[in-house]
Amino acid sequence: MQTDWIAVDWGTSNLRVWAMAGNRIVAQATSEDGMGRLDRDGFEPALLRLIEPWLGQRQTEIIACGMVGSRQGWYEAPYRATPCTPLDFASLVTVPTRDARIAVRIVPGLKQVKSPDVMRGEETQIAGVLALKPGFDGVICLPGTHSKWVHISAGEVVSFQTFMTGELFALLSTQSVLRHGMAGGGWDDAAFDAALSDALSRPERIGAKLFSLRAEGLIANLTPAAARARLSGLLIGVELAASRPFWLGQQVVIVGSEALAKSYTRALAAQGAAPQMLDATEATLAGLTAARHKVTA
Amino acid sequence: MQTDWIAVDWGTSNLRVWAMAGNRIVAQATSEDGMGRLDRDGFEPALLRLIEPWLGQRQTEIIACGMVGSRQGWYEAPYRATPCTPLDFASLVTVPTRDARIAVRIVPGLKQVKSPDVMRGEETQIAGVLALKPGFDGVICLPGTHSKWVHISAGEVVSFQTFMTGELFALLSTQSVLRHGMAGGGWDDAAFDAALSDALSRPERIGAKLFSLRAEGLIANLTPAAARARLSGLLIGVELAASRPFWLGQQVVIVGSEALAKSYTRALAAQGAAPQMLDATEATLAGLTAARHKVTA
Repeated sequence: MQTDWIAVDWGTSNLRVWAMAGNRIVAQATSEDGMGRLDRDGFEPALLRLIEPWLGQRQTEIIACGMVGSRQGWYEAPYRATPCTPLDFASLVTVPTRDARIAVRIVPGLKQVKSPDVMRGEETQIAGVLALKPGFDGVICLPGTHSKWVHISAGEVVSFQTFMTGELFALLSTQSVLRHGMAGGGWDDAAFDAALSDALSRPERIGAKLFSLRAEGLIANLTPAAARARLSGLLIGVELAASRPFWLGQQVVIVGSEALAKSYTRALAAQGAAPQMLDATEATLAGLTAARHKVTA
Repeated sequence: MQTDWIAVDWGTSNLRVWAMAGNRIVAQATSEDGMGRLDRDGFEPALLRLIEPWLGQRQTEIIACGMVGSRQGWYEAPYRATPCTPLDFASLVTVPTRDARIAVRIVPGLKQVKSPDVMRGEETQIAGVLALKPGFDGVICLPGTHSKWVHISAGEVVSFQTFMTGELFALLSTQSVLRHGMAGGGWDDAAFDAALSDALSRPERIGAKLFSLRAEGLIANLTPAAARARLSGLLIGVELAASRPFWLGQQVVIVGSEALAKSYTRALAAQGAAPQMLDATEATLAGLTAARHKVTA
């Protein structure tokens, strides 16, 4: 099948590319050439290393989202200000390339000036949700390194808020004193549930509850599986305590990787909410496809 | 002046030693041979490298506190269970040494079984406070990597609680996405005060407030000095929200390094408390001196 365009999700740590025929995937590839390890001149070669086999005689159109459009990325795609639609044709930024076989456009991120906040990449997943669920009004939760909660109304991003939950989990489980009690991994649903409930009712105790994982590891035989699940439950619990105005009584769609989306769904279900789940990659591809349709429309 | 004993504060990152004549300092030395970089056979040589010049014909008595007594340390000094006095002569642990010129004893840490918690090193500083302020009843706050709040009554540690505040500050300011907005250091008291107040009144928002430091750095020209002070204010604010039962209406002594003790004093003063400050090293030495007196009494 012929590749008629290429979808690119280019984050801080990874580069993922898909050869597309319309909205169908023809081939895919990934590398660890994320923005974080490239200087400005490294982006085009890193992309070509993955997509070279898919290029033909005609110029191939490429739509990219993510940190590739940040100031430290390949080419800056300035933030658009909310409230606004997640995508806007006129705002896609064309990247100058040396190789004439590719025509690269980057989807800009969004910024919120009042209650300052930013996103890059999630706007494309939001556009994907709206493409897959036309007319959706409600809240989109995008758990991850920097979890986002997003109010959607009439096809626009009305407001959003970012939480450092995922980055805190990564730092605490691998770089802090708590790492000693988590070697070996594993998971314990009951520990997750208890920690979640605890953090939702007493979020201010987070600093002490974190250290308790260390203390219980030393003197109360806390297992690595329970420690890991409790750390997650505590951090997600504090996030849900603060994001209550987003999810309480709202229609919520969770867009994330399977494991993380399941944890958030379980957590919200325990609070009486009934979120829907949508795969993050599916949302990204639907969003990039929507961006491409706007370009070619 | 003759060295009649040696005081040792041996933590995860540093080794600090003092040649003492009674309760006076004759000489001091430090190295980076903390517990974290030594295996079991490395402790005695690391100590001798620093104290060799102070050793004479007679055997020299050495009293050590800190992580040196942990399971991963030189020789385990099992935790004593609270409620208890911070020091107990009979519980000092004698370390077998190869070099007959030294007689090394380690002060054990404390554990709290209900609401599991542990300390190692702080028990010695607490003993120091009680030596310097005989009859003290009230609360001792020991800010640091793992900040401790300790209820003291009738010379005993009644209960305590540890917060990961200092480790969170270190991880977030040097390892997280927030590090980009903090290069260059500096400090901003007004930013600290505002963040403190914010976190005390809405502690559950910590995850979002942390990310706002990144967002404001990108789109609202937040300075590194303000970002750094706000990070500190947010984390200390959440700690004070949870430690309120310790400090509200209590006599509080803060034992810490000068800069950190000043931040906690400023924070508590803003809440109407009037803590006293005591230098951490002074407290450690007073505690080790008290332990030595108990040994030789």
